[in-house]
Amino acid sequence: MYALVCPEEAKLARSTRESILTAAAELMRHRGYAAVAMKDVVAASGAPIGSIYHHFPGGKTQIAREALLNAGAAYGLLIPTIVDHFDDLGEAIEAAFAQAAEDMASTGFANMCPVASVAAEVADTVTELRDTTSTIFTSWLDGGTAYFCSRGLPEPTARDVTVVLIGALEGAFLLARTLRSTEPLLAAGRVLSPRYRGVALKPSHLRPSELPLEPTNSSS
Amino acid sequence: MYALVCPEEAKLARSTRESILTAAAELMRHRGYAAVAMKDVVAASGAPIGSIYHHFPGGKTQIAREALLNAGAAYGLLIPTIVDHFDDLGEAIEAAFAQAAEDMASTGFANMCPVASVAAEVADTVTELRDTTSTIFTSWLDGGTAYFCSRGLPEPTARDVTVVLIGALEGAFLLARTLRSTEPLLAAGRVLSPRYRGVALKPSHLRPSELPLEPTNSSS
Repeated sequence: MYALVCPEEAKLARSTRESILTAAAELMRHRGYAAVAMKDVVAASGAPIGSIYHHFPGGKTQIAREALLNAGAAYGLLIPTIVDHFDDLGEAIEAAFAQAAEDMASTGFANMCPVASVAAEVADTVTELRDTTSTIFTSWLDGGTAYFCSRGLPEPTARDVTVVLIGALEGAFLLARTLRSTEPLLAAGRVLSPRYRGVALKPSHLRPSELPLEPTNSSS
Repeated sequence: MYALVCPEEAKLARSTRESILTAAAELMRHRGYAAVAMKDVVAASGAPIGSIYHHFPGGKTQIAREALLNAGAAYGLLIPTIVDHFDDLGEAIEAAFAQAAEDMASTGFANMCPVASVAAEVADTVTELRDTTSTIFTSWLDGGTAYFCSRGLPEPTARDVTVVLIGALEGAFLLARTLRSTEPLLAAGRVLSPRYRGVALKPSHLRPSELPLEPTNSSS
């Protein structure tokens, strides 16, 4: 409460909080959830352990939850950001996979976002984080469906396209990271796009301010 | 070496070894890699720690490697096993996703195989296991391609279909486990199958002995 009446301290607190979440997101993106210990968050964020528990009384699970929600919110706009440049659905789909392949190759096939890999790890074990990743996937599916509807697709098509794009991207990311190859992403683009060539997308109403220019800074 | 001249002891050793690998596969299927400790393998297998290190001097990494290879070998036959009942590629693809949806729902959306979830977790960190999961994915992709070629598809189509089926299945498994919903699997079947309806598959030459009847017993 004190921080609310002391702007400098509030700023510092916010920045400490953000440092902790950024550090946790980076650690989880790299190692997953179980392999990250609180001492790693201390070391990577520079925040003392007492400060970490002050900001996150729920400990590691709470930190992971908030870091995943931040990353999830940014990544939910990735597909609309790419598709927005196209007025043909087939071309947009092929471009989305080509862009993902380029991004992965240019980062040495790093994990771009901790949401999916942590989701795979915790789905049967850490109920609170399974709920968190479920909330994030639901927001991606609902948000993508609403976006494609706004571009003129009928709702069932918008939904199926969104669900399959996200599923195929996540599966191809996993294969690509493991095989150190863009083939799984490019093959998905080749197989999925032909059916949708000639399906026109209406002009977009997505405002530029809604498009994250630096989606990899999701947790900063 | 002694075990080689003493059949009873060799049998016991093989069974201890198999118990350890089965226990490790079950633990990883459920929790991933980092969250499994050697003491968990001791508890779940019933094998004393000394015996575990006798059979697996490389410790947890070696156990994980062998357990993943066992699971991977069994799962590589899953798609051929399902597709083998069909002579139309589109119908086969829809059936593969429908079967996966049914299997997942009937197990309460459990993780069916540890390979993909462990692959996601270790790709940036545990080089030896990244190599192992890469070997497994490569065998799935090469094996699936050879299978579809044997059913009469031209090699580039066989390869793309295999890569996309496996990628889309893995991504949909992740979404389905997290959302506790069959929608991601059924949507993938709906979107991927129409393009391949009417693409005839030649009669199969897969021998029944090559088809695992109980693929979930992969590590036993």
